[in-house]
Amino acid sequence: MKVIKNEREFGAFLTALKRRGSSDNPAIARAVKTILEDVRKSGDEAVLKYTRRFDDPKAARLRLSPREIERHAGKADPEIVKALRISAQRIRKFHGMQTEKSWSFCEAGSVLGQSIRPLGRVGVYVPGGTAAYPSTVLMNVIPAQVAGVKEIVLCVPAVGGQLNPYVMSAIKMLGVSEVYRIGGAQAIGAMAYGTKGIKKVDKIVGPGNIYVATAKRMVFGLVDIDMIAGPSEILIIADDRADAPVIAADLLSQAEHDELASSVLITDSKRLALAVSDEVQRQLSILKRKKIAEASISRYGAIVLTKDLRDAVSFSNRIAPEHLEIMTEAPEELLPLVDNAGAVFLGHWTPEALGDYAAGPNHTLPTNGTSRFFSPLGVYDFYKRSSLVGFTKKGFQRLSKVVEALADSEGLDAHANTIRIRKEMLRQGTSYQGKD
Amino acid sequence: MKVIKNEREFGAFLTALKRRGSSDNPAIARAVKTILEDVRKSGDEAVLKYTRRFDDPKAARLRLSPREIERHAGKADPEIVKALRISAQRIRKFHGMQTEKSWSFCEAGSVLGQSIRPLGRVGVYVPGGTAAYPSTVLMNVIPAQVAGVKEIVLCVPAVGGQLNPYVMSAIKMLGVSEVYRIGGAQAIGAMAYGTKGIKKVDKIVGPGNIYVATAKRMVFGLVDIDMIAGPSEILIIADDRADAPVIAADLLSQAEHDELASSVLITDSKRLALAVSDEVQRQLSILKRKKIAEASISRYGAIVLTKDLRDAVSFSNRIAPEHLEIMTEAPEELLPLVDNAGAVFLGHWTPEALGDYAAGPNHTLPTNGTSRFFSPLGVYDFYKRSSLVGFTKKGFQRLSKVVEALADSEGLDAHANTIRIRKEMLRQGTSYQGKD
Repeated sequence: MKVIKNEREFGAFLTALKRRGSSDNPAIARAVKTILEDVRKSGDEAVLKYTRRFDDPKAARLRLSPREIERHAGKADPEIVKALRISAQRIRKFHGMQTEKSWSFCEAGSVLGQSIRPLGRVGVYVPGGTAAYPSTVLMNVIPAQVAGVKEIVLCVPAVGGQLNPYVMSAIKMLGVSEVYRIGGAQAIGAMAYGTKGIKKVDKIVGPGNIYVATAKRMVFGLVDIDMIAGPSEILIIADDRADAPVIAADLLSQAEHDELASSVLITDSKRLALAVSDEVQRQLSILKRKKIAEASISRYGAIVLTKDLRDAVSFSNRIAPEHLEIMTEAPEELLPLVDNAGAVFLGHWTPEALGDYAAGPNHTLPTNGTSRFFSPLGVYDFYKRSSLVGFTKKGFQRLSKVVEALADSEGLDAHANTIRIRKEMLRQGTSYQGKD
Repeated sequence: MKVIKNEREFGAFLTALKRRGSSDNPAIARAVKTILEDVRKSGDEAVLKYTRRFDDPKAARLRLSPREIERHAGKADPEIVKALRISAQRIRKFHGMQTEKSWSFCEAGSVLGQSIRPLGRVGVYVPGGTAAYPSTVLMNVIPAQVAGVKEIVLCVPAVGGQLNPYVMSAIKMLGVSEVYRIGGAQAIGAMAYGTKGIKKVDKIVGPGNIYVATAKRMVFGLVDIDMIAGPSEILIIADDRADAPVIAADLLSQAEHDELASSVLITDSKRLALAVSDEVQRQLSILKRKKIAEASISRYGAIVLTKDLRDAVSFSNRIAPEHLEIMTEAPEELLPLVDNAGAVFLGHWTPEALGDYAAGPNHTLPTNGTSRFFSPLGVYDFYKRSSLVGFTKKGFQRLSKVVEALADSEGLDAHANTIRIRKEMLRQGTSYQGKD
């Protein structure tokens, strides 16, 4: 792995990292736009056409029946289904901590508050083919259920006619009953615009390839979306006493995802830097997804040598990684210095993989430096809020002068009129409301 | 005003309303893209060039000095500044209810939680010219301050070299010290990419014209943005006893904003429908912004007659208005039926204008039907969250089997390795971490 020892090298690496995300490909944008337009105009017919073209030439019905879900789920290994169930329980417990309640307070003739309600209808996108993961189903559906979303619809393409038995097990386990075997931009279009067969949703969540991501970005505003996901990162801060084989394994667990994934170790120990570099080479050679991991490590892997651990955290903050593992003597001491990270994993016994599957927190995290401003997917993503405002006559009278003055200063006399007309009718006794 | 009496007419009106938002203008998109690219490449030089071209031919320095802010603020009427101060206090109190704290809990060998921190640096956009409103400053800056954002930067164009004294008063009052006299797509570009003189921000909030909105949409992902704002709405649900002049005034207060604004009354009373229609005509004739209000009312104004008030709420939910006034005998009884609304104003004494300026809740609300899934601007918009995960050796051992099984089922063996290697080293006693 390349070793970075100074600010100049770090700057160049950071630029390369950020550039991974700039997938502003006009050809893809055009293709996606065509599909979306087609779905908007021709509905189910267009969805079926693209499903046949891209996923399954034999596709006929778009909706999966409960029996089909059952049948595919039946092929799953019960041991793994049990693991999924334990995982689902932990995820549900963690997200249960994120529920919020409507609130209000009274003050001098007014009641003010905010009503917090679940979204009405949410669409979850689950990739198909080799990227079909049951954990995607758990991590996207459970927070919506915890928020109280009543209608959850799920789209998963049957690539080559195949459906993943574990994805189907997760769907069955969570009781999602509205499932379509569709994917790509056509699935996003169907959920955003609605078709005869598929009612439009309020929000679309879930990962996907560049076509899915581009389509989500294009329909944003017509519906809400979760976030703009980019290539992902692991960043490990470690001191001299950390175990090199463990760090190497954790770096590679990110690298195997994607050639654009980034795996970075930041340490103040030269000894550890060398040992990890050797271990990465050794472990790489026996991985199933060696090719992907190798490409990722060689382009976006690095070991940054810093003078101390405080410095290590400040470099980490500039990368703003999706996953941050702190493997030092006292990881919690560095925690207050961490500004930007999707999720922080504390200590030797907390490999990122625990968080990917079963620890409880969501594995949908802000990538590619966006943890500067985005947050993990959570129950809060499935609420909508309305402000509540109520004034009594006295409360109105108390505040009316302020509002009149401000409306006048902004030159909005129809705004000021709404105050004046109430005062005038009150004075004249012409409003029955004056009685209260 | 046009009166809508059946589902067919309502459907046509709803379609017209939704179409207002589809400002997918390719010429504007191209112009904005050019400006953004230019700002990205040439920085301050490009910003100054466009500022001279669009706002102020004499523009020289981009940053406003404290003395300039002071000087412009000095021209404000002290009575109105006092009103702004009262307004700011109420807004701060309301938003204080939205603060959140980091949390964590321990469970069987693991600590799980979420750290909630303010964004590092936020950019607030304030329009210039006739749309320069001091209330924009209060409503966008205060929630960021309440969240604890340390760096708040504000951009406001000096259209024709002019700066609004009340905008400057609000800036001074809130202690915002980093202020640039720039606007349009060039201001959005400067904040999103950063220039030599203007450090890049994490999030951009605030209203703007179509160029600003388009630019915000384009930089979304590189930075966060508040929401995609569209034309706004007022919707009033009223029963037979409501006061027609008051309702007409409230409808017009929305209509005067913008020709695309929509003002709708939904009532079960024919008498009220007629009375309001007459009143609107009467009050229209004496408004300063008569032309705008007239265009808005004639195209996007309507009175919907329903058989009862429950029905009225269900029509309202389909429109999903930005502002919903309920002027019925017992407005709180209808409240539980309201699904979609940016803000709800209860009863005769709560004109929307109170909320626009001084009631306390934010006036930045989801428009054009997006209250189905977006929320008012709030303190929550200025936080970022990180998940926290920490396992002890025992906790790790307990969960490791589950995670190994799931990683294997997803074919991600490098993920499974991170578990296996820890278990193996523990067994062999080769990890010093085994001691814990």
